[in-house]
Amino acid sequence: MTVGVWLVGARGSVATTVAIGAAAIRSALVPAQGCVTELPGFPGTLPRIADLVFGGHDITDISLRKRAERLSESGVVPATLPAQLGRDLDAADAEIRPGGVPVARLIEDLVEFRERHGLSRIVVINVSSTEPPAVPRPEFGDLALLEAAGADILPSSSRYAYAAFRAGCGYVEFTPSPGPTLPALMELAARESVPYAGRDGKTGETLVKSALAPMFAGRALRVRSWSGLNLLGGGDGATLADPAARASKEISKDRAVPAVLGEEVEGRTHIDYVADLGEWKTAWDHVTFDGFLGTRMSLQFTWQGCDSALAAPLVLDLARLVARAHEKGRVGVLPDLGYFFKDPLGSGEHGLSTQYDRLRAFAGELA
Amino acid sequence: MTVGVWLVGARGSVATTVAIGAAAIRSALVPAQGCVTELPGFPGTLPRIADLVFGGHDITDISLRKRAERLSESGVVPATLPAQLGRDLDAADAEIRPGGVPVARLIEDLVEFRERHGLSRIVVINVSSTEPPAVPRPEFGDLALLEAAGADILPSSSRYAYAAFRAGCGYVEFTPSPGPTLPALMELAARESVPYAGRDGKTGETLVKSALAPMFAGRALRVRSWSGLNLLGGGDGATLADPAARASKEISKDRAVPAVLGEEVEGRTHIDYVADLGEWKTAWDHVTFDGFLGTRMSLQFTWQGCDSALAAPLVLDLARLVARAHEKGRVGVLPDLGYFFKDPLGSGEHGLSTQYDRLRAFAGELA
Amino acid sequence: MTVGVWLVGARGSVATTVAIGAAAIRSALVPAQGCVTELPGFPGTLPRIADLVFGGHDITDISLRKRAERLSESGVVPATLPAQLGRDLDAADAEIRPGGVPVARLIEDLVEFRERHGLSRIVVINVSSTEPPAVPRPEFGDLALLEAAGADILPSSSRYAYAAFRAGCGYVEFTPSPGPTLPALMELAARESVPYAGRDGKTGETLVKSALAPMFAGRALRVRSWSGLNLLGGGDGATLADPAARASKEISKDRAVPAVLGEEVEGRTHIDYVADLGEWKTAWDHVTFDGFLGTRMSLQFTWQGCDSALAAPLVLDLARLVARAHEKGRVGVLPDLGYFFKDPLGSGEHGLSTQYDRLRAFAGELA
Amino acid sequence: MTVGVWLVGARGSVATTVAIGAAAIRSALVPAQGCVTELPGFPGTLPRIADLVFGGHDITDISLRKRAERLSESGVVPATLPAQLGRDLDAADAEIRPGGVPVARLIEDLVEFRERHGLSRIVVINVSSTEPPAVPRPEFGDLALLEAAGADILPSSSRYAYAAFRAGCGYVEFTPSPGPTLPALMELAARESVPYAGRDGKTGETLVKSALAPMFAGRALRVRSWSGLNLLGGGDGATLADPAARASKEISKDRAVPAVLGEEVEGRTHIDYVADLGEWKTAWDHVTFDGFLGTRMSLQFTWQGCDSALAAPLVLDLARLVARAHEKGRVGVLPDLGYFFKDPLGSGEHGLSTQYDRLRAFAGELA
Ligand SMILES: NC(=O)c1ccc[n+]([C@@H]2O[C@H](COP(=O)([O-])OP(=O)(O)OC[C@H]3O[C@@H](n4cnc5c(N)ncnc54)[C@H](O)[C@@H]3O)[C@@H](O)[C@H]2O)c1
Ligand SMILES: NC(=O)c1ccc[n+]([C@@H]2O[C@H](COP(=O)([O-])OP(=O)(O)OC[C@H]3O[C@@H](n4cnc5c(N)ncnc54)[C@H](O)[C@@H]3O)[C@@H](O)[C@H]2O)c1
Ligand SMILES: NC(=O)c1ccc[n+]([C@@H]2O[C@H](COP(=O)([O-])OP(=O)(O)OC[C@H]3O[C@@H](n4cnc5c(N)ncnc54)[C@H](O)[C@@H]3O)[C@@H](O)[C@H]2O)c1
Ligand SMILES: NC(=O)c1ccc[n+]([C@@H]2O[C@H](COP(=O)([O-])OP(=O)(O)OC[C@H]3O[C@@H](n4cnc5c(N)ncnc54)[C@H](O)[C@@H]3O)[C@@H](O)[C@H]2O)c1
Ligand code: NA
Ligand code: NA
Repeated sequence: MTVGVWLVGARGSVATTVAIGAAAIRSALVPAQGCVTELPGFPGTLPRIADLVFGGHDITDISLRKRAERLSESGVVPATLPAQLGRDLDAADAEIRPGGVPVARLIEDLVEFRERHGLSRIVVINVSSTEPPAVPRPEFGDLALLEAAGADILPSSSRYAYAAFRAGCGYVEFTPSPGPTLPALMELAARESVPYAGRDGKTGETLVKSALAPMFAGRALRVRSWSGLNLLGGGDGATLADPAARASKEISKDRAVPAVLGEEVEGRTHIDYVADLGEWKTAWDHVTFDGFLGTRMSLQFTWQGCDSALAAPLVLDLARLVARAHEKGRVGVLPDLGYFFKDPLGSGEHGLSTQYDRLRAFAGELA
Repeated sequence: MTVGVWLVGARGSVATTVAIGAAAIRSALVPAQGCVTELPGFPGTLPRIADLVFGGHDITDISLRKRAERLSESGVVPATLPAQLGRDLDAADAEIRPGGVPVARLIEDLVEFRERHGLSRIVVINVSSTEPPAVPRPEFGDLALLEAAGADILPSSSRYAYAAFRAGCGYVEFTPSPGPTLPALMELAARESVPYAGRDGKTGETLVKSALAPMFAGRALRVRSWSGLNLLGGGDGATLADPAARASKEISKDRAVPAVLGEEVEGRTHIDYVADLGEWKTAWDHVTFDGFLGTRMSLQFTWQGCDSALAAPLVLDLARLVARAHEKGRVGVLPDLGYFFKDPLGSGEHGLSTQYDRLRAFAGELA
Repeated sequence: MTVGVWLVGARGSVATTVAIGAAAIRSALVPAQGCVTELPGFPGTLPRIADLVFGGHDITDISLRKRAERLSESGVVPATLPAQLGRDLDAADAEIRPGGVPVARLIEDLVEFRERHGLSRIVVINVSSTEPPAVPRPEFGDLALLEAAGADILPSSSRYAYAAFRAGCGYVEFTPSPGPTLPALMELAARESVPYAGRDGKTGETLVKSALAPMFAGRALRVRSWSGLNLLGGGDGATLADPAARASKEISKDRAVPAVLGEEVEGRTHIDYVADLGEWKTAWDHVTFDGFLGTRMSLQFTWQGCDSALAAPLVLDLARLVARAHEKGRVGVLPDLGYFFKDPLGSGEHGLSTQYDRLRAFAGELA
Repeated sequence: MTVGVWLVGARGSVATTVAIGAAAIRSALVPAQGCVTELPGFPGTLPRIADLVFGGHDITDISLRKRAERLSESGVVPATLPAQLGRDLDAADAEIRPGGVPVARLIEDLVEFRERHGLSRIVVINVSSTEPPAVPRPEFGDLALLEAAGADILPSSSRYAYAAFRAGCGYVEFTPSPGPTLPALMELAARESVPYAGRDGKTGETLVKSALAPMFAGRALRVRSWSGLNLLGGGDGATLADPAARASKEISKDRAVPAVLGEEVEGRTHIDYVADLGEWKTAWDHVTFDGFLGTRMSLQFTWQGCDSALAAPLVLDLARLVARAHEKGRVGVLPDLGYFFKDPLGSGEHGLSTQYDRLRAFAGELA
C-alpha cells in the first residue's frame, strides 16, 4: 500500500524536520534514529518510511527549502542536508496547499492528493500552531447540528479533523488544540469508520515527568510539590507567548503528574518565550517529596532538547501506526497510542512504561 | 507467624532508622510512608510491620538511642521520636550481639534469637559497612572445599550469609559486598532450602537512572554519555572514602545504564565523601543523547536524598517479602526482588518499571 | 551609647530570627556568623550586637516563643535554642506593641521605648509583610500637603517611616514596600536630620545575580537572556502569592541585571508560593550569553537558602551601621549601604563587589 | 608599531579560533565580542587587533583550514567563516613552524618572524597541550647552571618561554604547564628585560568560582564544601584524560576558592574526558555553606561553555596588553594580569572583581 502523510502546518519547524528527515532516510544519508517504530520487535507490516508520500496545508508562503536552511543554522538539521536534499524539499513544497480555507476546499485537497499519487490511505497530522481552548457551542456536541450549521464554524484544528474524516483519512492531533476531541467529531469518525489519535506530542519535560512520576508512586514516596519552568523560542514559543494559546499547552502539561500519582500536587508549570533560544528548549523541574518518617527530599532536572528533532520521528511513527491501524479496520480513538502524547485521548494512563507496554502490544496486533 | 529481622550492622544509620521507624509505626506515631509493601494490592499474607522482632550484630558499642539522637539532629528522624521511643530503642539494643566473631558464634546468636522469641522465621539483612570486592579463592567456589577450610576464611559479609543459611534463615544483601554471591554460598542456600536476595539497595541516583534509561531506549534516542558525581557524608560516605570499598559500590552503580540500553556508554560515576553533608546525599547526573538526524541534546538531574530514610522502608519490605517467600517454600535467589537493588541477583533486568511489574506479580504469588 | 532596634513585623520569621539570634550571641551560644560587620576591618565604634535593645510593632498575637519553636521545627534555628532562650524571647515579646494603629500612637511607642531604656538612638527596621506598590497621591509628593492631610493616609510602611522620622529615629526599609521612598518622606528625613537606607534585603537569587552579572560584563560576554523561577514558602511566600504584593518584589528583583549590564535583557523572573518549602527557598536561574564569534553558551544556578537565616544578620548589620551613621551626623539616604539591598536607594550601582568596596569605605568613615 | 603574536600550539582549537577570529574582525565580518580590551575605557594605545600578525609552532601537520572546518562543524565558529576566510587561514598557516625542535631553532624562528614582518615586538603565547608538573632539577633553579647544561633539558613549555625571552619577546603562559615559572627562567626574563604573564587561562568553572567565592566571604557566610565535576571533550580533554597532565590542571583549578576564603575547604574538583562533548564543556559545582545560627544552605551551578570561544578573545587581549607593557618598559612578571588566569603569577589575589579593578588600573598606566 502507498501511504500519504498530510501535514497541517506543513512549513512549520516540526513539518520541515519531518520532510527533510524522511528525504534523508529515503536517500540513506542518515539512520532512522529516534523512530520508535524502527526498534526491534515492531512489525514489518507497517508502511516503510521511505515509501511515505508527503503533502499538507499551511498559511505561510516561506518555502520548505528556506525553512530547512534556517533549521540547519539553528543546529536542528545537519548543515549539509538542505543543499543535498534541495530537490526533495522543492518536490514536497509543491504538494503544500493554502490552509485556512473553507472545509469543502480542505476536503478536495485531500481527495486530489489521494488521486494524484494513487494512495491507498492518508493520515492527516496536525502540526500547526497551537490554538486557544475551544469556546463551547451546542453544534460542537452534536454532529447533526454541526452539519446543519456548516463545519466552517469549527475551530481551525477541528476543521482539519472534520475534513480528514470526511475524506476517509485517519487523523493525528499532535498539538494541544481541540482537533478531533469535540463530541460531534468523535461521532463523525465513527460514522466514517476512520481512526484517530492524540493529543499534544510528548517530547520533553512531560516525557521526563511521565518517566519519573511512576518511580515515586512505586516507591511509596509522597510527592509534595512539582514546579517547572519551560523556556522556549521558535515559532511554537512565539505562539505560546500568547496567554490564550498557552492555556491549552499548560492544561496538557499538567495532566501527567496527578494522573500517575492519583492526587493533586502543589506547584505549577510556567512556559516562557525566550526568542534567544531559537529552536531549543530548556525546562527545569523541581520536585519535593517525602519518604519514611516524613523526611523531606528533592529532585531537580534540566532538560535541554530540540523540540523538532524530538517530534519529527514521532510524526513518522504515528503516520505508520495509524495508517496500518486504519488498514486493519480500527475505528475511532486509538487509546494504545497514548505513549506519544501529553494528553492521551481515550486513556487515563500517563505512566511512560505502562504506555510503552501497551504500544508494543498494540503493534503486535498490527502484525 | 512471628518473624524476626536480624540486621548485620544493627547500630548503623540504616539499621537505626529501621529500628526507630518500626517502633514509630507500631506505636502509630507515623504512617508506613515509603514502604512499597504497604501500597494497595500487596497481599495481606505478608507479616505485619508491627509484629516484626528485631535483633542484630554490630562491632560498635554506641547505643541505638545515641545513634537515633544523632540522626534526629541531622534531620533524618523527627526531633521528638528518639525521646518518645527511647524504651523501644533500648529494648532493640538489648538484642544486638557483637559482630566480627567466629561463624559458629554468629550461628548460635541466630538460633538463640529464634528460641528467645519463638520465631517461626528469621530474615538476616546485611546493612553493615561496604567491603572491598572479594579476592577469589578456590574455597569460595566450592562448598565442600569451604567447609573443609572453615567458613571463617570468608569475607565478613559472606560469613554472615553463611551463618544465616546454616541457621535456616533467609538473607538479604543490602550492600554491594560479596555476601551470598560466592558460588559456595549459593550451593549452601540450595542445600539448606533458604531464599536470598540482593544486592545493594537502589535508593538514589541509580533509582533515577533506572527510571530514565528506559525512556531513552523506548524512544530510540541514543545515549552518548552518562556521567555522575555523588557527594555523600555519614558513615557510609566515610567507608566509601576508601578506594577499595568504593570499588564495590562503583561496580554496582555502573550496571544499570548499559544493561538497559544494551550497549556500553561513555562516562563514569564518581563518589566523593563530603563530611559536611552528614546523612544527606547529593548526586548530579549529566546525560547526552542524540535524536533524529543526530541532533545532540542533554538531560541533567540533581538528586538530594536522605539515604537512610530511603533505605529503611525497603529493609522492612524485603524482610516481609523474603519471610513470606521462605514460608511459601521459595529457595535460592529471588530474582523478582530486583526492583530493590542496584545489582539485582539472578536477573539482568534493570528497567525500573519492568522490575516493578515483576515484583507485583511475585507479590501476587505470595498471597 | 545604648542603641534600640525597633522591628516592624516583630513577630515575623526574620524578626524572630533576629531576636533569637541576638539573644544567642549575647549568651555566647553561637558566633555572629553571617554578620558582615563582624568581619575583620569593620570599626570598633559600631554598637555591639550584645548591647542592642529590641522592640517592635506587629499585628499578630502569636508569641515570639511560639514563632521560635516553629522556626526550629523548620530547621532555621537549632532545636535547642528556643528552650534555652525562652526567657529572653519572652522579654523581647513584652516590648512588642500592636501595629496598624494611628501614626500618633506609633510615634508615642517609639518615644516610650527610648525613655524606658534610656536609649541614645533608635533604628526602626521594617521587616513586615510586603505591600503592593503605592498608588500615587499628591500628598505623597509634598510634605506640607501630607501634614495637612494627616500621615494616616500613607501606605502602611510609609506610616512607620513617618513615625520613625518624627521620633528622630533612623529607618531601614528591608522590604520592597514604599516606606521612606515617597518624596514627602524624603523631605521629612531631611527636616528631622535622620538617616535612612533601603530597600528590599538582598539575600538570595538577586545576591547571586549581582555577583555574576559583573562577570559577564567584565569579560565582554553579551548576556542574551536571563530567566528565573523562585519557589518559596513561609509567611513571605504566602504574602507574595498575592499578585499585588508580588509586583513590588518582582520590580525589585529585576533591577540588578540590566543595571549592571547597561541594557535590557530578555527573560523574566517568576515567584511561586510553594507551601511545602516552609521557610526555605529554591531559585533556579538560566542565563544565555554569547562570546567570541557569537558562540552561544549558558549558565544555570540553583540557590537553596533559608531566607530568614540570610536576612537576620543583615538586619543586625544595618542597625549597627545606621545607628553609628546617625551618631556621626549623616542625614537622609545612605547610598553606601546598597550592598545590602535589591533596590539600593540613592545609588544606581548593583555590582556586588563595587557595592562591597563602597560599604567598606563607608565603614571606615564611621570609625 | 606592528606587533607579532606567536602561538605555541598554533593549530590547536584555541589557536585556530584566534586565527579565524582575528581574520574575521580584520574583515569586519564580526564584532570583537568577548575581547575585554575592546570595552570602553581601555586605552587607544594598545595595538589594534586588525594589525596583529600571527605565526607559531605546532607539532601537527593538519592545516588551519581543516581545523577551522572541524570547529565550525562543532558550532564553535559560524558555518560560513572557514570558506569566507580560507585565504587568510592559509596565509596564517604558512607562518607556522614545526614545534618540538631544539631551543636554538625556536629562537631562530622567532627572529626570522620578526625580520620577515618588520615587527617592533612579539608576544609568544603558549596554547599547546598541557604538560605534567615539572620534575625539579637543580638547573631549573639557577640560570647559570641551566645555560651550562643547555636549555634543551627544560620541559617543553619552558623551552618555548626560554626561546621567547632569549629572542627578546614577551611571553604568556595560557596553560597550566611550567613555562616561565621555573626560577632560572624568571632570572632570564629579568636579564633580557622582557615581561611575562600567566598562568592557565580562566575561562569557565574557575571564572565562576572566582566571581562567587567573594560573595560568600563578603557576606560572612562560611563555605563548608565545594565540589565539582568538569566534563570536556576536544583535544584539551583528550590530553587531560592522562592523569599526569590532569594533575597540573587540578592544581590550578583548586587555588581560587581557598585563596579567596582564606582557609581550606572540603571537596574536590574532578575532570573527566567525555569525547562526545566535542569542543564543549559542562561543569557542575556544588557548594554548601552556613549562615546565621549555623543554618546549612547550598548553591549549585552548571556552566556550559565553549572553551575555545572563551579563550580566544583573551589571547588577543593578552597579546595587546603584554606588547604594550613591553613597549612601556615593564619587565618580569605582570601581576596585574591575574584577571585572566586560574593561577595568577605574581599575585595571590583570586577575587574576580578585585582582579578586574587591578587590570583597569594597569590598563590606565599603559595609556
Ligand atoms: N515540537 C515539539 O516537540 C512539539 C510537541 C508537542 C506539540 N507540538 C506542537 O506542534 C505544533 C507545531 O510546532 P512547530 O514548532 O512546528 O511550530 P511552528 O510555529 O514552527 O509551525 C507551525 C506552522 O503552522 C502553520 N499554521 C498556523 N496556522 C495554520 C493554519 N490555520 N492552517 C495551516 N497552517 C497553519 C504556521 O504557518 C507554521 O508554519 C505546535 O502546535 C506545537 O505546540 C510540538
Ligand atoms: N542507605 C542507603 O540508601 C543504602 C543503599 C544501598 C546500600 N547501602 C549500604 O548499607 C550499608 C549501611 O549503610 P549505613 O549508612 O547504615 O552505614 P553506617 O556506616 O552508618 O553503618 C554501618 C554499620 O555497620 C557496622 N559494621 C561495620 N563492620 C561490621 C561487621 N564486620 N559486622 C557487623 N557490623 C559491622 C558499623 O559499626 C556500623 O554501625 C552500607 O554498606 C551501604 O553501602 C545503603
Ligand atoms: N527573608 C529574606 O531574605 C528577605 C529578603 C528581603 C526582604 N524580605 C522582606 O522582609 C519581610 C519579612 O519577611 P518574613 O519572612 O519575616 O515574613 P513573615 O510573613 O514571616 O513576617 C511578616 C510579619 O509582619 C507582620 N505584619 C504584617 N502587616 C503588618 C503591619 N501592618 N504592621 C506590623 N506588622 C505587620 C506579620 O504579622 C508578620 O509577623 C517581607 O516583606 C519580605 O519580603 C525578606
Ligand atoms: N580553551 C580554554 O578555555 C583554555 C583555558 C585554559 C587553558 N587552556 C589550555 O590551552 C591549551 C590549548 O587548548 P586547546 O583546546 O587548543 O587544545 P588542543 O589539544 O586543541 O591544541 C593543542 C595544540 O598543541 C599542539 N602541541 C602539542 N604539543 C606541542 C608541542 N610540544 N609544541 C607545539 N605544539 C604542540 C597540538 O598539536 C595541538 O595542535 C591547553 O593546554 C589548555 O589546557 C585552554
Ligand atoms: Na511496565
Ligand atoms: Na571591586
